[in-house]
Amino acid sequence: MTISQINKSRHVLINGQPDALISPFDRGFAYGDGVFRTLAVVQGQPEHWLDHYQKLVSDCHALGIVCPSADILLSDIDKLIKVSSKEKPALKEKLEIVVKMVITRGESERGYAMPALAQPNRIVIATDFPSYPEANFVEGVKLHLCSIQLSHQPVLAGIKHLNRLENVIARAEWHDSNMADGVLMDAFDHVIECTSSNIFARFGSELHTPDLSNCGVAGVTRQRILALSETLCLQAKVSHIPLARLMQADELIICNSLFGAWQVRELNQQRWPRLALASQLRALLKSAHAQH
Amino acid sequence: MTISQINKSRHVLINGQPDALISPFDRGFAYGDGVFRTLAVVQGQPEHWLDHYQKLVSDCHALGIVCPSADILLSDIDKLIKVSSKEKPALKEKLEIVVKMVITRGESERGYAMPALAQPNRIVIATDFPSYPEANFVEGVKLHLCSIQLSHQPVLAGIKHLNRLENVIARAEWHDSNMADGVLMDAFDHVIECTSSNIFARFGSELHTPDLSNCGVAGVTRQRILALSETLCLQAKVSHIPLARLMQADELIICNSLFGAWQVRELNQQRWPRLALASQLRALLKSAHAQH
Repeated sequence: MTISQINKSRHVLINGQPDALISPFDRGFAYGDGVFRTLAVVQGQPEHWLDHYQKLVSDCHALGIVCPSADILLSDIDKLIKVSSKEKPALKEKLEIVVKMVITRGESERGYAMPALAQPNRIVIATDFPSYPEANFVEGVKLHLCSIQLSHQPVLAGIKHLNRLENVIARAEWHDSNMADGVLMDAFDHVIECTSSNIFARFGSELHTPDLSNCGVAGVTRQRILALSETLCLQAKVSHIPLARLMQADELIICNSLFGAWQVRELNQQRWPRLALASQLRALLKSAHAQH
Repeated sequence: MTISQINKSRHVLINGQPDALISPFDRGFAYGDGVFRTLAVVQGQPEHWLDHYQKLVSDCHALGIVCPSADILLSDIDKLIKVSSKEKPALKEKLEIVVKMVITRGESERGYAMPALAQPNRIVIATDFPSYPEANFVEGVKLHLCSIQLSHQPVLAGIKHLNRLENVIARAEWHDSNMADGVLMDAFDHVIECTSSNIFARFGSELHTPDLSNCGVAGVTRQRILALSETLCLQAKVSHIPLARLMQADELIICNSLFGAWQVRELNQQRWPRLALASQLRALLKSAHAQH
């Protein structure tokens, strides 16, 4: 098998084809007309596959894109896992990789009008798992407070689509590698999310996460935490959270599908004590595995 | 020469290379992290090149992307013109094509962080000139009133970047081929632009076009009309235009770099008499040619 190997840690399949590239007429390239997902593959298994696939289908549906079947995507992922394990046979049992799936509306002529018969393109990419600092899990993380404000677009809110310039610009605001992520607000100083993760704030026995009906990406791990919070005797709430309110939280955590959950240790010159919510959630997120 | 020929009317150069395609790690594809321009080439000459190149440089600059030199882009365009003329020798003198230039930040690893040493990619595409109905120039056009509202993002406003899902969704709102374009408003019912053109409203001797400091694309033809309006004894104004005010205009026109200007005949069940502003502007836009 000669799957496109740009360097040792990157493998790509486009519509199942190794060594394939993207047409400049693909609407994902031309307009960001598509969606994506990023997930962890651990010991040969895509983690929480059903949640991720459901979200991919739902995001595709929101844009009127036909999502490829789970079987087709899983077969692509399986091929990429095989190539990655061959490369690192010593790690075979413990192999952790990141899989990114991109679904675009497909190709069209120039112009915004959607083609009558669009053939969606699927791009599946496997890369090395990031080497997160151990301290992020043990001590928690420091967050930058971003100055760019997320725009309100209810039609696109929640969807992980390919129009991500706001995230790119936000991520360029800090160069301090001690900052694990950056907190994004909207124009009304409501906290929405981080550039690559969602955020939760515990106030007593209530666990709040921002309402994403105007902006932000509703990630799979956020959804799972909302469902799991009861196990920790916490009442999950989706609400509008002004920054001033967030700063009064007893605990803050951020989450995504790769690192699970991290405790927030510092934001905007305020520090939080080292508490246990993130590690409790990581344990829960892991143990809830087997279901999917 | 074997420039990539997907069908008879499309030719592409990527970083000057024919038959090239795009990497899935290109940030234009991954995040819409890039900008573009669309211009007309008439009789072998890119129209209003200086205006377009200046706007491309300015849009690249706004995103921190290094824009390729004018010479490099003009050399790409020249190659594409030569291939297109060879294909249609009978039209050589009159050949009209559309050139789209896309500049992306280049490739990077997964993640929003910009690469320290980004190598921008340039994609230059030549396609057939659209066959606009003659009636659009003579009688004017009918416009759809879009229901999707443009979001406010002052950091990106005015830039012709690759995050164009709002335009895609707006353009999908109508299927009636008698609608030449769709009028877009923001959440405050201010008129901003059309999906593929800018808009002007004449009130007496004042020629207003929407303020684009919160959203919209500040097109080259809009800029040229603002500069040329004095010639028609009109006072150009950039202002906030609520829909209700737009509907009171004596004349409405829409404009872009391909068709020039069209008179608006009908919008939201209101009709305007057949007046001459668009044709006057087309003549002016054409005659101001030679300068560039």
